[in-house]
Amino acid sequence: MASYRAPLRDMRFILNEVFQAPETWAAMPATQALDADLAEAILEEGARVTGAELFPLNQSGDAEGCRFEGGEVRTPTGFQAAFATLAEGGWFGLGGNPEHDGQGMPKQLTVAFEEMLYATNTGFALYPALNSGATLLLDSHADAATKARYLPKMHAGQWLGTMCLTEPHCGTDLGLINTRAEPLPAPGDAAPGEQRYAITGTKIWITGGEHDLAENIVHLVLAKLPDAPAGSRGISLFLVPKFRVDARGELGERNALSCGGLEHKMGIKGSATCVMNFDGAEGILIGEPHQGLAAMFTMMNYERLSIGIQGLGLGEVAYQSAMDFARERRQSRAPSGPAEPEAAADPILVHPDVRRMALEARAWNEGGRAFTAFVAGQLDLAKFHPEAAVRDQADEMVALLTPVAKAFLTDRGFEATVTAQQLYGGNGYCVEWGAEQYVRDARIAMIYEGTNGIQAMDLVGRKLARNRGAYLARFAAAMRADLAEGGDAEIADFRDAAIQALARLEAVSDGLLARGAADPDELGAAATDVLELLGLVAYAWMWWKMARAARHGLAADGPGGEAFYRAKLAVGRYFLSRQLPKALSLEARIQGGAEPLMGLDEEAFYPVD
Amino acid sequence: MASYRAPLRDMRFILNEVFQAPETWAAMPATQALDADLAEAILEEGARVTGAELFPLNQSGDAEGCRFEGGEVRTPTGFQAAFATLAEGGWFGLGGNPEHDGQGMPKQLTVAFEEMLYATNTGFALYPALNSGATLLLDSHADAATKARYLPKMHAGQWLGTMCLTEPHCGTDLGLINTRAEPLPAPGDAAPGEQRYAITGTKIWITGGEHDLAENIVHLVLAKLPDAPAGSRGISLFLVPKFRVDARGELGERNALSCGGLEHKMGIKGSATCVMNFDGAEGILIGEPHQGLAAMFTMMNYERLSIGIQGLGLGEVAYQSAMDFARERRQSRAPSGPAEPEAAADPILVHPDVRRMALEARAWNEGGRAFTAFVAGQLDLAKFHPEAAVRDQADEMVALLTPVAKAFLTDRGFEATVTAQQLYGGNGYCVEWGAEQYVRDARIAMIYEGTNGIQAMDLVGRKLARNRGAYLARFAAAMRADLAEGGDAEIADFRDAAIQALARLEAVSDGLLARGAADPDELGAAATDVLELLGLVAYAWMWWKMARAARHGLAADGPGGEAFYRAKLAVGRYFLSRQLPKALSLEARIQGGAEPLMGLDEEAFYPVD
Repeated sequence: MASYRAPLRDMRFILNEVFQAPETWAAMPATQALDADLAEAILEEGARVTGAELFPLNQSGDAEGCRFEGGEVRTPTGFQAAFATLAEGGWFGLGGNPEHDGQGMPKQLTVAFEEMLYATNTGFALYPALNSGATLLLDSHADAATKARYLPKMHAGQWLGTMCLTEPHCGTDLGLINTRAEPLPAPGDAAPGEQRYAITGTKIWITGGEHDLAENIVHLVLAKLPDAPAGSRGISLFLVPKFRVDARGELGERNALSCGGLEHKMGIKGSATCVMNFDGAEGILIGEPHQGLAAMFTMMNYERLSIGIQGLGLGEVAYQSAMDFARERRQSRAPSGPAEPEAAADPILVHPDVRRMALEARAWNEGGRAFTAFVAGQLDLAKFHPEAAVRDQADEMVALLTPVAKAFLTDRGFEATVTAQQLYGGNGYCVEWGAEQYVRDARIAMIYEGTNGIQAMDLVGRKLARNRGAYLARFAAAMRADLAEGGDAEIADFRDAAIQALARLEAVSDGLLARGAADPDELGAAATDVLELLGLVAYAWMWWKMARAARHGLAADGPGGEAFYRAKLAVGRYFLSRQLPKALSLEARIQGGAEPLMGLDEEAFYPVD
Repeated sequence: MASYRAPLRDMRFILNEVFQAPETWAAMPATQALDADLAEAILEEGARVTGAELFPLNQSGDAEGCRFEGGEVRTPTGFQAAFATLAEGGWFGLGGNPEHDGQGMPKQLTVAFEEMLYATNTGFALYPALNSGATLLLDSHADAATKARYLPKMHAGQWLGTMCLTEPHCGTDLGLINTRAEPLPAPGDAAPGEQRYAITGTKIWITGGEHDLAENIVHLVLAKLPDAPAGSRGISLFLVPKFRVDARGELGERNALSCGGLEHKMGIKGSATCVMNFDGAEGILIGEPHQGLAAMFTMMNYERLSIGIQGLGLGEVAYQSAMDFARERRQSRAPSGPAEPEAAADPILVHPDVRRMALEARAWNEGGRAFTAFVAGQLDLAKFHPEAAVRDQADEMVALLTPVAKAFLTDRGFEATVTAQQLYGGNGYCVEWGAEQYVRDARIAMIYEGTNGIQAMDLVGRKLARNRGAYLARFAAAMRADLAEGGDAEIADFRDAAIQALARLEAVSDGLLARGAADPDELGAAATDVLELLGLVAYAWMWWKMARAARHGLAADGPGGEAFYRAKLAVGRYFLSRQLPKALSLEARIQGGAEPLMGLDEEAFYPVD
């Protein structure tokens, strides 16, 4: 059956031994109050509350799904009570700005909690994940009065935020949106000088667009003002609450917006995916007119890392559940003769190919956890570090790695769930074991928040070509500097592999940028493979960091314990010998250029017989 | 929405131009009656009947599923009528022995019809697929009286066969089965001298174990006789009908067997997956005592290729449906500037990364279709060819390639459905579009009929190591001889790539056999990657054959038409530049050996925190 314990030992190792996070926290004024003990207490309580409240509702939530009844949405049985418990514990404001009642915890800590949320119940996790992104957006772009009115309640989970971008005819290409915003005369409950707008249009795939978990829902909606320039430069951002909010922050009457129905989906069935109709609903502008897309990117970038963590969390719970199955299942004999002759058959982990499946999932998970912590650490530096130069450098690293975090983590997370399902044999296909739900729930992560193809084009277009490889060059310099530090001869294989992979990426990238300057199709043709290659290189770096920390832990009798450090090195060597070699085929694919894609006439793609 | 037209043009090309099947048919007495015109008529009518009867029931069958009511199983609405129509058309005996009212069609033709069955409705297709394997088994191993009693009705779809192997505690390791068979005193309705047995035990995951499509169900059941040796050498095979059958072939009373329930599955919901309880049910022995597993392999090998075709059919319908979406969807502009400036956005196929997804699915499908036809052609030679030497050689080729056909086709088929789903963006995750069903339906094909890991171990153990590479050497010789024949300089790239890939496989295989002799874990550790590598090499051969035939078609103004041949070459070049390079990483993985898998203690696999 499904089984999960938050991987606290690995989280501690990554925070304390790989990244020395407590030292960084102590060095930055905004995070000085956090030390290793407090972080540990938060992780332990996070593990407890998600394990006790959310995990038991995962399979039932999938089976029951959300219901749409007379315009209202009912979440699955138990979601309301669990939501209230977590809200009361302050979990939904964990990373929120303390000036507005958030807990102010750094991202490198909160990502660990996010992983637990997704692992225990992805359908549930999406409600707070969207809310956290919405609070970050408002904290960055709203005026002081709006922040004061909205943020404390959103941090408390009393009100929940959403993200309204997509329309039936456009998702990727937001320049095409039809939703419009018309200025309104000031209503009686408006704050002095406040301008309100009537929002009209239909938005689809709105996660948590309607539900029964909170007393208000705060929609962040992209729409066009009457004088908007065409395309994506004419998009503005509006806050449109389900219930109107007066100048004092009190709830008023219901706004002119409604849920038109729920999508019937492959998975994440506990998450309400809504069609939202705005029929002249009253809203306020957030940020400057026509600058809405840039503001929305504050939230989108947040959600992109979060969705990456969805892949990681599902990969982890899928692995753990499969190991629970493997522990009990006996079938056939070890290739070299019976391992347990007194039993009728050996445990399935005697078979090398079963170990391959287990390690495939596990190595992606452990690499992904370190990579997530790395990106989160860069986000913390960008936000909290007192020196502008450090902030800028971290900002650049985040810009480069956000598409990788979204796409590579979700692709690997999906693979991990599929591989874990395979390990069960036929049981993996039967609903009761839970393995197939992880596959269905993980599949969406490759699609929403910008498909993984869009992430790849963002990477090669905005993050590589636009700055002519400057971000990548600085990434490479940081990686090389780190590879030169510490470590002993025992882990030279980790260093050598990482250096080789990096050199391969640089050569490929140089060639691509040259070709791309002459023919823009070259960038698009290589995009997905370049993203994969950068992902592998980044994981190779993370595995070097983990190997170095494990060697140090072994020498210094560290807190992880010898068995943990030895397992870490063994899993890392699986990565080196079985996962990193994909770089060879990616290199060859990229060098094949755009012609194999563009050589076929568009008409020839469509079936004819 | 879901969309499918049987790829007749490609099927014709493969049969007539790539394999010159009509010439082979004319040369073998058993198939002389079949010519290109008759084959074409069968393909066209097969396309019509599956398109008209089965495709419209695919999504509704998934939504409705099978129902279990008081021991009976109801298939989804419409399945009964469609089944009757196809049975009446003789489609369920298409490949059956004409001595018992089968149509006697060669496998190379029937696989094309099978692809249509799976593409239009996989949940439905499994009932006749199991039945065809069961008739083949009986035709090969039953005595004359049993054949006469059972085969005509099974070929007519009046009775349907099943395959009862798995028990709750064992699937792969059939030596562990508990189902037992006790000799019975001869009942009154037995034929003279006929021995009957009482079968007792529980079998699970029985496809079509109970349903409402046929008047009788013919279970082929593995069980142990009282004097059975331990393990897999003590397994016998029994025919156990749902309704007893007397010596004249008339139906009698209900046998002591019943369906205990249906599995709740991820997909193939139109297929009844049953728990079957045998409570002293009366059966007859098929073949010799204790030789049941060998007899069952006649059916299993049949089903393995069939399940491979499931992957192919689903990959094809997924591709076609996605292209139907792509034809209508417009989003953003081509990288080099607007392709259709008068429209608000360009068709999504202007984007190289969208083409990548489309070609990824399409190239796997076209390679897989040729490979399927190749294996089927070898099966025909093995069965029908007048010369024993040709039959033996073909038998060997089939033995080597059957695990590849099952595993490689289903892995690639699943990938194709996932990639096609990705092309829709968010729509691909919504049930109404149908793309997500293909993913769910394709997933099982990697698991049942021996998981793909089991296929890989069969390949490296029985088909490579046991004969010290002799089968592979003869495969390589046949491939090299073919690569030396025909073709012009324009397609030298196809020849060179195939030769290189083959050499890589041979080197890897030699090294592996040497290592495996010293340490049997080495074989298991490399198994999955070796299977993938052999699959890629075989596809490279198929693409050479297709490129040669396309060049010939272009020069000779062949029936496919110029656009078809040019597209074929373009898709082939996608394979060469984007799919075949995976061989590089597979080689590196295999050379990494078993240590990265075996280096971790079993205990360290289980989660601890």
